Amino acid sequence: MNANPTTTPDREQVHSTESVRTARERSTILEQRIATDPSRFRVLTGERPTGALHLGHLIATLDNRVRLQARGVEIFLIVADYQVITDRDVAGDLPAVVREVLLDYLAAGIDPDAATIFTHSAVPALNQLLLPFLSLVTVSELERNPTVKAETAAAEKRGRRGMSGLMFTYPVHQAADILFCHANLVPVGQDQLPHLEISRTIARRFNNRYSADQQYFPEPDALIVPTPTILGNDGAKMSKSAGNALEIRASEDDTVRFVKRAKTDSERHITYEPDRRPEIANLLTIGAHFAGTTPEALAEEVGAAGAGRLKQVVTEALVEGLRPMRTRRAEAAERGPDYLRDLLARGNERANEIADRTLDDVRGLMQMRY
Amino acid sequence: MNANPTTTPDREQVHSTESVRTARERSTILEQRIATDPSRFRVLTGERPTGALHLGHLIATLDNRVRLQARGVEIFLIVADYQVITDRDVAGDLPAVVREVLLDYLAAGIDPDAATIFTHSAVPALNQLLLPFLSLVTVSELERNPTVKAETAAAEKRGRRGMSGLMFTYPVHQAADILFCHANLVPVGQDQLPHLEISRTIARRFNNRYSADQQYFPEPDALIVPTPTILGNDGAKMSKSAGNALEIRASEDDTVRFVKRAKTDSERHITYEPDRRPEIANLLTIGAHFAGTTPEALAEEVGAAGAGRLKQVVTEALVEGLRPMRTRRAEAAERGPDYLRDLLARGNERANEIADRTLDDVRGLMQMRY
Repeated sequence: MNANPTTTPDREQVHSTESVRTARERSTILEQRIATDPSRFRVLTGERPTGALHLGHLIATLDNRVRLQARGVEIFLIVADYQVITDRDVAGDLPAVVREVLLDYLAAGIDPDAATIFTHSAVPALNQLLLPFLSLVTVSELERNPTVKAETAAAEKRGRRGMSGLMFTYPVHQAADILFCHANLVPVGQDQLPHLEISRTIARRFNNRYSADQQYFPEPDALIVPTPTILGNDGAKMSKSAGNALEIRASEDDTVRFVKRAKTDSERHITYEPDRRPEIANLLTIGAHFAGTTPEALAEEVGAAGAGRLKQVVTEALVEGLRPMRTRRAEAAERGPDYLRDLLARGNERANEIADRTLDDVRGLMQMRY
Repeated sequence: MNANPTTTPDREQVHSTESVRTARERSTILEQRIATDPSRFRVLTGERPTGALHLGHLIATLDNRVRLQARGVEIFLIVADYQVITDRDVAGDLPAVVREVLLDYLAAGIDPDAATIFTHSAVPALNQLLLPFLSLVTVSELERNPTVKAETAAAEKRGRRGMSGLMFTYPVHQAADILFCHANLVPVGQDQLPHLEISRTIARRFNNRYSADQQYFPEPDALIVPTPTILGNDGAKMSKSAGNALEIRASEDDTVRFVKRAKTDSERHITYEPDRRPEIANLLTIGAHFAGTTPEALAEEVGAAGAGRLKQVVTEALVEGLRPMRTRRAEAAERGPDYLRDLLARGNERANEIADRTLDDVRGLMQMRY
């Protein structure tokens, strides 16, 4: 799942090398199982609708979802609209943002007939799970959560009113997102590994307390996926707020211009050295992603031809890669607002059916049927 | 609303004398308004289903609800079943407890056709309000809540695992209980005044942020009611866990025996001095409550006749007062489990209709209709 954007990897409490290694090994096994029997998996993923999605989202998360979908894994895609109000003071034009995000999903290749796309605010039974789940974690466990810790630090730094109760309980809400649909797989970047811990703890504790025989909730697994940080054309991390992003909805001209303006360095020979040459590495990552190769191989290919040639190669790969997305996006947009409304209504309906069933099971297990 | 039972008045942060005086004056005005136009008020009250209700509940809360009902005020009565799991480690026989509580409501004189009796767990849209409401309070505001503070202290004392997230967010859940049905009146004891503050804050902030023109949520008023602490026959505060309670469902013989065994003191002349003579004062409070007089007047009446006579008077008043309750309870119980199930189903249905409407309004105000 896409972590709360206020948490960037460098502010994360990184898991011990040991547990990262275990999780990586586990992910390799999971990928093999996905390849042989994708029907055993259900993925929960999504994001907060804070704006149209960009190249950073596409490379780090969207394309991976499409990859899993193509393999036959069922995808649940949450538009976490309540989690937007953790960091805004007034209501923005949320409906417009949600529409853009839906178009970006379709552009990237999410199949709305295969995936279940839904919003938090439309699924009361999912949200109700927050209550039993809150009883299964302590305040100190929430305080230790990396997102919550980062947000506490950020709030102190800002010196304004503290963290909201919604942000504080965010990991429990996330557990409800994952567990309501019995998702057993959550794609995360290596740095986001601790985010899943509270969901796993809640599933385990619920099972121990209320469902010892049946083990009702699966303990969701983290599927560690590469989540390279994509830079904007100013060399800083790509983000909507930094104004340096190439949005998925951008035109071909914008795409060409984005690469043209991207920073490079003064060394002629192209090499893939992310730490020493971040801007070059960024272009290599983008180019390689769309050309279906590795940044190293692409560096080798361009080599002495230099940054000019690199930009040419990246532009071609990027324009080529984004073209079918633009087409899909334009087609969906042409179908008018009803099309997106219906798509979301269908997803919400399906999510509600599942959430109602889960909540009813949970009521039964907790002896709350009267 | 009945505060969480882990909070007893002596552990409360008592409001300043000033604000108590203001609230008392306000309550006097409210009582006048109730007398002239009861249709302007909707009361939200209820309790956590931890066991059959006893004389302490009857005198401190139930009889007041029946009084308001008789005046024509609409009552919403919540059986706060999720809030039970804040302090139990395993699921008890909750359905049996809920049935007893329902029978106690009927015994006390709650009219199930006039009041809306419902459970937390059956009203998802109510629970969903927790999410927007959590965004309107900060973690430090929750930490300052008296119930949360008392529970933190108690948890530290016990030295076991800390307070749960559910207990921590309890004041926000309470706000959802009150605001979902637009209740504008919450009966509280003087010591419980601070409990309502977070609900008032949430209503105010929601209105300011999302509904400046309309002021969608009423700021609920506290109706301060006398909530005398009733003692068990061992002289300690009456409670189920202390095993010193006279339950509403007790037989007439049990009632007689309860008064017989009640502690008195060695002074012959009966006076109402709660601090110096708590056991005598307790008998006077109970007797006066059912005889429709004041403890002072009853003390005057018994006077030199002593504790024996006092017990005789209290027994008669109590037996007389409880008799119609026993009859109503027995009649309701005779109608079988389906009767209670239907009664609760009707209440839940009505609560759901209202909660769905409120949630839909809230979605609209927050621009979350897509």
